Amino acid sequence: MPPEPRIILTSGEPAGIGPDLIVGLAQLAQPADVTVIADPDLLRERARQLSLPLKLVHGDRPGSGAAKLKPPMLRLLPLRLNAPARAGRPDPANAPYVLKMLELAARRCLRGDYAALVTAPVQKSMINEAGIAFSGHTEYLAGQCGSGLPVMLLSCPGLRVALLTTHLPLRAVPAAITPERLRSVLDTLLRELPLRLGIDRPVIGVCGLNPHAGEDGHLGREERDIITPALQRFRAEGHAVRGPLPADTAFLPESRWATDVYVCMYHDQGLPVLKALGFGAGVNSTLGLPIIRTSVDHGTALTLAGTGKAECGSLIAALEAAASMARQQRRFLNAPVKNGPDAGP
Amino acid sequence: MPPEPRIILTSGEPAGIGPDLIVGLAQLAQPADVTVIADPDLLRERARQLSLPLKLVHGDRPGSGAAKLKPPMLRLLPLRLNAPARAGRPDPANAPYVLKMLELAARRCLRGDYAALVTAPVQKSMINEAGIAFSGHTEYLAGQCGSGLPVMLLSCPGLRVALLTTHLPLRAVPAAITPERLRSVLDTLLRELPLRLGIDRPVIGVCGLNPHAGEDGHLGREERDIITPALQRFRAEGHAVRGPLPADTAFLPESRWATDVYVCMYHDQGLPVLKALGFGAGVNSTLGLPIIRTSVDHGTALTLAGTGKAECGSLIAALEAAASMARQQRRFLNAPVKNGPDAGP
Repeated sequence: MPPEPRIILTSGEPAGIGPDLIVGLAQLAQPADVTVIADPDLLRERARQLSLPLKLVHGDRPGSGAAKLKPPMLRLLPLRLNAPARAGRPDPANAPYVLKMLELAARRCLRGDYAALVTAPVQKSMINEAGIAFSGHTEYLAGQCGSGLPVMLLSCPGLRVALLTTHLPLRAVPAAITPERLRSVLDTLLRELPLRLGIDRPVIGVCGLNPHAGEDGHLGREERDIITPALQRFRAEGHAVRGPLPADTAFLPESRWATDVYVCMYHDQGLPVLKALGFGAGVNSTLGLPIIRTSVDHGTALTLAGTGKAECGSLIAALEAAASMARQQRRFLNAPVKNGPDAGP
Repeated sequence: MPPEPRIILTSGEPAGIGPDLIVGLAQLAQPADVTVIADPDLLRERARQLSLPLKLVHGDRPGSGAAKLKPPMLRLLPLRLNAPARAGRPDPANAPYVLKMLELAARRCLRGDYAALVTAPVQKSMINEAGIAFSGHTEYLAGQCGSGLPVMLLSCPGLRVALLTTHLPLRAVPAAITPERLRSVLDTLLRELPLRLGIDRPVIGVCGLNPHAGEDGHLGREERDIITPALQRFRAEGHAVRGPLPADTAFLPESRWATDVYVCMYHDQGLPVLKALGFGAGVNSTLGLPIIRTSVDHGTALTLAGTGKAECGSLIAALEAAASMARQQRRFLNAPVKNGPDAGP
């Protein structure tokens, strides 16, 4: 059996629940071969605050993952904080620490030392207060990896939603619905769903921008002018790309069962449904990067840090999703070419 | 015991599933004292097509509801079609018939002959093709009743969503988010939730317009400039009006349990969640009218008309909701004034 994929996990904002979740993770049979980047003193201090045991194992040399760790052990790649961290009280002085973790983790994944990156939440406003432009993990990692438009994919059991636009004011959304963006997002999905999720000929449901998908042009023109022509090109190439769908009825159970991934035009068209149905087991993945990256689907929850009330469900789901994507990618890349000279009888 | 509230039911587009649903209703123990407006020949023909029995009882004099009808009987207020109707083939020649039903039903409710109006779906495009401006039941009935801004309220078990804007292209939504509109919708909810739904001090959750409710102004200004100040005025008056809430997390189960009604800024922010959770038992009510009106939450489903595949679930839910609202309104208006001279010890 091939070795378990090695995963690198950034601990995120030191004043948030990231360190709590990691201490919580150390108590469990780990869902993957994980190495955490964090300040060891921060983790020890948070463990003390939570009255939980913790044993840190330094070292991230390739091959060191072979020895299976038992609770409460945790493999660590240490990185020092810039300033002492207190639960619930973020400090912009630690913004360089937060970004350094991401940079280091992305570099090690690109080099092939790790098969996937999982991120705990960061406090965007703290990084901005430190005078550093930062609009989110997704965009930062695309920059670090030198890749084009990344695609945010949210998943929960039974439902996947990819976003065409992410963190834009609603009034800026219509102008961002372009044929180029639609094509880029659909190309990424059609390439990476087989590669990383094992979905061979995905059925993709694309929502319209306007209510009732524009109702034949009576409620907006973007469907007729932009979305429908773009989708027709994909259909002409034989892809199962459906839509534009009226968003209000797109997520009825019988439609969900028949759809591998939805593409929503904007944040609040798809995420309220996904989170209402997802019950805290949501995973946020970034497609369109040369590396595999997943994340929890929640924020830093400052008021819960250090209280013992933070729940590990989404982190465990994110680690399992990353490991599963890494295994699938390995299978896919090692598989004989279908119908090619190597294909069996 | 007071008599059951009398309900008038319009049969909607004659080529759609409205007549099928009504023939289906005649087969059941009726959930309320219902009188249907339709062409009797249309209903008889559709019953024959569906191989279902039907016995029409003409007459809608007040008091005629006292005699309980048994399946397959149905009380009818007859109105003649303008042109023969065929299942699945709508004809603009029948647009005057469709509108006449609504006009007649609204007038009889305003006069007090009926306690509530329930509507089967109409085919908006057919009415428009007949050269008549018509943007929907809600707006048409507001015109017939001479009332102000109506409020569309969608309900399913465990969730109610009121819309601040309804059938607008997405790019027109931001300009429609005004303090006046917010105030009008909240005033209507605070007046009619106790009157018609028996919710005495409703907890209302108002979503923001932008993702993450604008994230402190980083993702849009409407929350700071318009929504928050409007909500603060209601809170200062002692109302439990919460928000602006980030829409993606607003509908998590623990928030739903604590919220009587959500106000969504636009159609596809709230209805995808409601329909995904509602499983075809959704009811559409219009608040802000002098009459009680509910409706199914689906369209004319032309391809299903005459096939026997149309399902009555949403119509039955709409009739039950209308009867319940009428009973609640009667109780509310007959109740002694709280803390007034009639209040008991």
